[in-house]
Amino acid sequence: MSLDISLLLDLVGVFFFAVSGSLLAARKGFDLIGSVLLGSMAGLGGGVVRDVILNQGPPAAFSNPIYLVPALVASALVYFTLKNVRRSGRLLLMFDAGGLALFCVTGTLKALDAGMNPGAGILLGVTTAVGGGILRDITANEVPSVFDPKDLYAIPAFIGAALASGLWQLGWLNLFTGGAAAAVVFLLRILSLRYG
Amino acid sequence: MSLDISLLLDLVGVFFFAVSGSLLAARKGFDLIGSVLLGSMAGLGGGVVRDVILNQGPPAAFSNPIYLVPALVASALVYFTLKNVRRSGRLLLMFDAGGLALFCVTGTLKALDAGMNPGAGILLGVTTAVGGGILRDITANEVPSVFDPKDLYAIPAFIGAALASGLWQLGWLNLFTGGAAAAVVFLLRILSLRYG
Amino acid sequence: MSLDISLLLDLVGVFFFAVSGSLLAARKGFDLIGSVLLGSMAGLGGGVVRDVILNQGPPAAFSNPIYLVPALVASALVYFTLKNVRRSGRLLLMFDAGGLALFCVTGTLKALDAGMNPGAGILLGVTTAVGGGILRDITANEVPSVFDPKDLYAIPAFIGAALASGLWQLGWLNLFTGGAAAAVVFLLRILSLRYG
Repeated sequence: MSLDISLLLDLVGVFFFAVSGSLLAARKGFDLIGSVLLGSMAGLGGGVVRDVILNQGPPAAFSNPIYLVPALVASALVYFTLKNVRRSGRLLLMFDAGGLALFCVTGTLKALDAGMNPGAGILLGVTTAVGGGILRDITANEVPSVFDPKDLYAIPAFIGAALASGLWQLGWLNLFTGGAAAAVVFLLRILSLRYG
Repeated sequence: MSLDISLLLDLVGVFFFAVSGSLLAARKGFDLIGSVLLGSMAGLGGGVVRDVILNQGPPAAFSNPIYLVPALVASALVYFTLKNVRRSGRLLLMFDAGGLALFCVTGTLKALDAGMNPGAGILLGVTTAVGGGILRDITANEVPSVFDPKDLYAIPAFIGAALASGLWQLGWLNLFTGGAAAAVVFLLRILSLRYG
Repeated sequence: MSLDISLLLDLVGVFFFAVSGSLLAARKGFDLIGSVLLGSMAGLGGGVVRDVILNQGPPAAFSNPIYLVPALVASALVYFTLKNVRRSGRLLLMFDAGGLALFCVTGTLKALDAGMNPGAGILLGVTTAVGGGILRDITANEVPSVFDPKDLYAIPAFIGAALASGLWQLGWLNLFTGGAAAAVVFLLRILSLRYG
C-alpha cells in the first residue's frame, strides 16, 4: 500500500524536478534534446541513485516505463511554453522545492519498504531528495544550489524524511499524511527562500 | 553469441572513448597519470554506469581484466604520439563519435541479454553511450558536449539503440549488422558535426 | 578478521576525507549544512562507489550507522574550530593524503574479501581512494586534485593497493602491516607534495 502512495508522489516529484532541469537547460541555451536530457537527469537521477544504493534490481526509472512520462512531459512543456517566461530562476526554485519535498518522503518510504532501519531510511531519503538537484547542477557546470548558504535546503529534506519515517513506523502513512509531510517541507523551503 | 559480438564492439568502443578522454587530458595539461585516469573514466565510465544499473554483479570493467587493455593502450598512445597533434579538438570529436556509435549498440544488447524490455534496453543503450562522455566532461570541469546545441549527439545514439533493439528482436543480429548499426550512428554524428 | 581491520582503518579514512571536504566547504563559503554535506560526500563517497561496484547489498555507509559518526564529527570540528585556520589549503592536502592512504588499503581488502581477483581488487582499491576526492572536487565545481600534474596522487594509491593485496595473499595482513602500508602511501604523497 505505501508503495502505491510512493509511486504517485514519486511521479509528481519526477515531474517537478524535470521542470527544474529543463528550466536550467533553457537558461544555459541548450536545445530540445538538452532539455530532455537535463530534465531527465534532474527528474530521474535522485531515484536512480536511491535504487542503486538499495541494490534490489535495476532502478525503477529503467524497469518501469511510466517514470519516463512525467520527465518527457515536463521537458516538452518547458521547452515549448515556459522557456522564455520571465523570472525563470524563481520558477526553477519553486519546482525544485516541490521535487525536494516529494522525494525526501518517497525516498525514505522506499528505503523502509526495502527493509532498511529508520536511520538509514532517513539518510537515503535525504540523499534521494538532494541527489537529483546535485546531478542537475554538476552536469550544467554550476555549484549545486544545495550549497547556497543563503537559505535552507537539506534541513527541510531531513525534516520531511524524519516525518515520513515516523508516519511509516506508526502505521499512519497514507496519501493524505504523506502529502502533508511533503507540504511541510515545501513550505519550509519556500519560507527559507523568502526570508533566508 | 550476441554477447561475444557485444564484447568485441564494446572493447573497440572503450578504446575510442579512452582516446577522447586522453586527448581532453592533454588539452587540459594533465600528466600521464591524468591521461590514464581521464581516459579510463571516459572509456570505462559508460559501461560501469550500465552494469551498475543492470545490477547483475560487479561491472565488467572490474570483473573482466581485458577491459583495461584498450583503455591503457589508448592513454599511452595519446600521451606519447598524439598529444601534440594539431586540431586535437577535431580528433577528440571523431573518437568520441566512434565510442558513441559502438556503446549505444552494445549497451542496448547487454540490457536485452539481461532480460530488460526493448524500451528499457534502448534507454540503457543511450545512457551507456552518453554516460562516458558526460563523466569525462564533468570531471574535466567542462559543460558536457552532449549539451552543445549546434549539433546532434543523443539523437544518433537513440537511433543506433533502436536499430540494435530491432535487429536483436528479429534475430538478425551479428557482427556485420551490429557494426553496420554503429556505422550509421557514426555517420549521422559526423554529418551533424559538419553541417550542424 | 581482515574485515575488522578494514572497518577501523576505513572509519579513520572517512574522518580524514570528511575533514578535507569540510575544509573545502569552508573555503567555498558554504554554511554548516554545506560543510556536513561536502564532508560526508568526501568521506563516504569513495566507499559508496566501492560498495555499489561490489554489488553485495546496500553500501556500508547506509547499512552501518557507525560510518556517519566520523563524517559528522569531522564536519562539526572543522566548522567550529578549523575553518578560519591559516593555510587551510595545506591542511586540506594533509587530510586528503591520510584518506587516500587508508582508502587504497581498505578498498582493496574489501574487494578481496568479497572474492575479487587481485588485479580487480587493486583497481577497486585505487577507485575507492581517488573516488571520494573526485566527488568532493566535482561537486564544489573544481578540477579534481588528482589531475594536478605537479605531484603524484594516483601512483601512491596504486602502490598502497598493491601492498595491501600482497599482504592479504601472503596472509600477513594485520592492523600493524595494514597501517604500515597506509603510512607508506601517506609518506609518498607528502614527499611528492613537498618535492613535486
